[in-house]
Order: sequence, then structure tokens, then C-alpha cells
Amino acid sequence: MRMAEPPEPSITGVLHPGDMGVTVAAAAARSGTVLWASDGRSAETCERAAGAGLTDAGDLTALIDAADIVISVCPPHGAEALAAAVADLGFTGCFVDANAVSPATARRMAARFENFVDGSLIGPPAREPSTTRLYLAGPDAASVAARFAGSPLEARVLDGGDIGSASALKMAYASWTKGTNALLVAVAALAAAEGVSDELTAEWGLSQSGLSQRLTYTAIRSAPKAWRWVGEMEEIADTFAAAGLPDGFHRAASEVFARLGEFKNARSASVEQMLEALLNPAAPAGGAG
Amino acid sequence: MRMAEPPEPSITGVLHPGDMGVTVAAAAARSGTVLWASDGRSAETCERAAGAGLTDAGDLTALIDAADIVISVCPPHGAEALAAAVADLGFTGCFVDANAVSPATARRMAARFENFVDGSLIGPPAREPSTTRLYLAGPDAASVAARFAGSPLEARVLDGGDIGSASALKMAYASWTKGTNALLVAVAALAAAEGVSDELTAEWGLSQSGLSQRLTYTAIRSAPKAWRWVGEMEEIADTFAAAGLPDGFHRAASEVFARLGEFKNARSASVEQMLEALLNPAAPAGGAG
Repeated sequence: MRMAEPPEPSITGVLHPGDMGVTVAAAAARSGTVLWASDGRSAETCERAAGAGLTDAGDLTALIDAADIVISVCPPHGAEALAAAVADLGFTGCFVDANAVSPATARRMAARFENFVDGSLIGPPAREPSTTRLYLAGPDAASVAARFAGSPLEARVLDGGDIGSASALKMAYASWTKGTNALLVAVAALAAAEGVSDELTAEWGLSQSGLSQRLTYTAIRSAPKAWRWVGEMEEIADTFAAAGLPDGFHRAASEVFARLGEFKNARSASVEQMLEALLNPAAPAGGAG
Repeated sequence: MRMAEPPEPSITGVLHPGDMGVTVAAAAARSGTVLWASDGRSAETCERAAGAGLTDAGDLTALIDAADIVISVCPPHGAEALAAAVADLGFTGCFVDANAVSPATARRMAARFENFVDGSLIGPPAREPSTTRLYLAGPDAASVAARFAGSPLEARVLDGGDIGSASALKMAYASWTKGTNALLVAVAALAAAEGVSDELTAEWGLSQSGLSQRLTYTAIRSAPKAWRWVGEMEEIADTFAAAGLPDGFHRAASEVFARLGEFKNARSASVEQMLEALLNPAAPAGGAG
């Protein structure tokens, strides 16, 4: 009987440690080394990665040579190109797409890999326990989940989940949360265009508790992130269409977020600025998805 | 100096006393006679009108001969035809359209009358005080509002409101309340189609308090009324488009409600029945608006 070889060290690669991704990387760092690749990333990303104690592999080639699991956390419109780049470099480990993409997009990515796990993230960046879930589906889901044991990021393996089911869950979840954000902004813009903003605010005060506050909060917190949600809304709309359901809610939401794209580098926006951007879009709407 | 003639008696006509309309009629009945027209109406409507102490004028011609103010409360897809019928019979009093129509539809109706007041109703049928507002806009709005003094229906005249502004307020208000109802049902149908209903319900339990309960409530309370909202969603979509805003949210909502049309004569629906109707529509979707 041959002696068992010592287990390979666990090395997780995370592409790319943005605001959410860095908390995923930090959660995996409890169970072993976590690599990232600084090549072509912004100074802000470098600073975040260093602060989280991640190891810089340099570039993508070096990262995939070393890592046995690579997790992709990026804006949805870039997810498929990133998966293709990793596959084209000959990665033989387990690729986890954790992005907000349709089940069909997830299945197209899966076809490029021997080992693929369909993932999705629900919740804010995972800085505290019990706020954020990483849903995982596919044959290797449990081994990916093990990397997050005891971390603030709760990894949940979907029972009998086929590739696409973690993505479907995210699509359904975000279709409500972000879809209603987009609708709320559009409703406020309609009232402004029709000169009945004060009357709507007064009526909301009587019968829709908290809605005016939510509008203000959306301007402050969501307007700067809207550019990233254009592609996500298109992925959601595609998911509705594939299920034979109307896709118009999220095509419209995509257009709303595209019109808010000008706040990409802002710290926040006021309600007035947000409605102005919606009613007088600077450039032709749509497109970014 | 000629002696002032005694004031004309105040006679209000209400077309037609449905579930909402009968409470509007009952509210006006405190200030004078309220007529309705039984010609061609259902037994249920006759019973409701009798119970509210309304006077049956018989038919539309008799009603408009007697009334100085006529208030239209009907499904939005029938509003314009009803206004046209009243105008074509030569009504010279004040016509109030209180329906969920776009400002453009209100303005088209207004063009048929010497005296027109643009109205809209927000809230449930006005059985108790402080639940329901009748918004009114136009030169004669105050005299219409006077008919509801001291009643459970609070009449609010929009300051300097042009014809169309009461309708615009309703469109903006309902675009959120009914638009989110339609979206919620569609989201649940998507999760069902993708086999992740239980997972979505569990995640909602963690991070979207009350949403599962709202879904159940929507099935019970909204599915039977959905047929009436198809036209309202189209009016809202037209209002968004006229303001240069994306109309897709409410075109999609219209289709969702059209697929729920089969519950028109049901007392309620279960979530399962509702999702089945959405995912396997009996007839080609759309159309009823």
C-alpha cells in the first residue's frame, strides 16, 4: 500500500477584490492562502487587497497556475469574458462564477471548464456574520463551501442544485430588490415631470410609510452603483424571457440605471440630481449592458 | 333689484356604483340627492346601490337631465367611452372623471365638456374616514369637493392644478403600488420556473421581511381584481412614455395582470394558482387593456 501523499495546500484565487470581492477573499483567507492579481487593477483595488492580507500573484497566468479554486466576483457584464480568459489560459482547477448572471450565462461559462461551480452572492459586502450568503450549486460546491467555514460569509450549497440554480436564485432575489429601486426612482421622476412631487410625497406620508425615505436612501446609496446594475438588469430580463415571463420590468430598470451612470464616481447623489439625470439623460439611454 | 332665485337643488349622479363607486356615492349623499342608473347594470350593483340609499334614475339620459354634477367611477378601459356617452347626450353640468387614466386621456375627455373636473381616487373604498382621498383639479374642483364635506371621503383640491394633474398623481401613486404587486408575482413565478422557490422564500425570511406574506396577500386580495388593472397599467405606461421615461415596467405589469384575468369571478386565489396562471397562460397574453 502506497503512502498517501500530503494534501495539496489550499490556494484560492479571487478575481477581482472589489468592494464585495475583497470580503469574499478575506473570508477564504481563514482557510489558506488567497491570491489576487494586481496586473491592470486600480490603485484603490491594490490598497483594498493589501489591507485584507491577500497575496499578489502578479498576473492572471501566475494566479491560475497556483490556485486550485478560482472565484470570479466582478460586474456581470464582464463575467463571461473573465471566465473565457481563465479557461483560455488552461485552468484545470475549479472555477466558481459568483456573479449576478442568468442561468443561461452560467451554463455557457460552465461549458468551458472541467470543474465549474455556479455561485451567487446575496447581501452586502460580508464584513459581519449573518449578513451575506454565498449560494453554490454543482458537483464541487461542497469543496468550495469548505473554504469559507467559520468566516463571516455563509456558504450555502443548494440541495441537488444544477448549474444555474444559484444564478437563478440571485436573479429572482435581485429582480425584486433592484427592480423596485429602479421603479421607485422612475416613479419619482414621473411625479416631477408632471409637477405633482409635493402631492405624491404628502400622499406617501399618509399611506406608503417610509417610501420618501427610501427614495432619499436610494439616491445616496444606489445612484453611484447604478452603472454596475445595467448588465445585471439585462441578465434578469433574459432570465424572465427564458421562463416565458414578461421581461419589460428589467429592460426598463436597465434603462433607468443606465441614465444614472453619470454618478459612477460620485460618493452619493441627491434626489433632485437623480431625477434630473433620469428626465434629461446626457447620452442615449441603454447600451452599457 | 331682482330677487335671487332659490338655489338649484344639489343632485349628483354617480356612474357606476361598483365597490369603490358606491362609497363615493354614499359620501356625496350626505349633501343631497345622489342618482345612479340601473339600466344594464348587474344585480350585484343594484343591490349595492339600494343598500347605500341611492336614487335610481333609470337610465343615463334621465340621470344627466337631473344631475348638475356627474362623477364617473369605472374601470379605466371604459372611462373614455363613458365620458363620450354622457357628452353625446348633451350633458351641460360638470363632469368629473375620477378614474385611473393618464393625463392625456383626461385632457381628451375634458375637451368634450364645458365644465370638466379631473379627479382621482387613492385608497380603498371609502367606508371609514382617513383611508381614501378624492383628488380634484380644474376650475370647478372646489364645488365638486363641497359635495363631500363631512363625509368619510376626503376631497382634496390640487392647488393651481391643471386638468391632468389629479390623474398624474394617481398614475404616479399606482405605478408603485400596483407595479410592485405585479413585479412580486412575476418574481415568484420566475423562482417557481427555475425550481428555487423554497430557497427564495428562505432568503426572503432572512433579508426581506414580510415579502412572503405580501405574496400570499396579493394572491388573496389582488388576483380577483387584476382584470381591472390591465387598462390602468397601460394608462400608466402611456404616462411614463409621454414623460420620456421607460414604459416597460407597466407594459410588463399589464401582461402579468392580463394573465391573472381568469380570477375575475373568484373570491381569491392561492399563490400556487396565481403562479400557474402566470407560467401557463390560458390565452395569448395582453389585449384586455
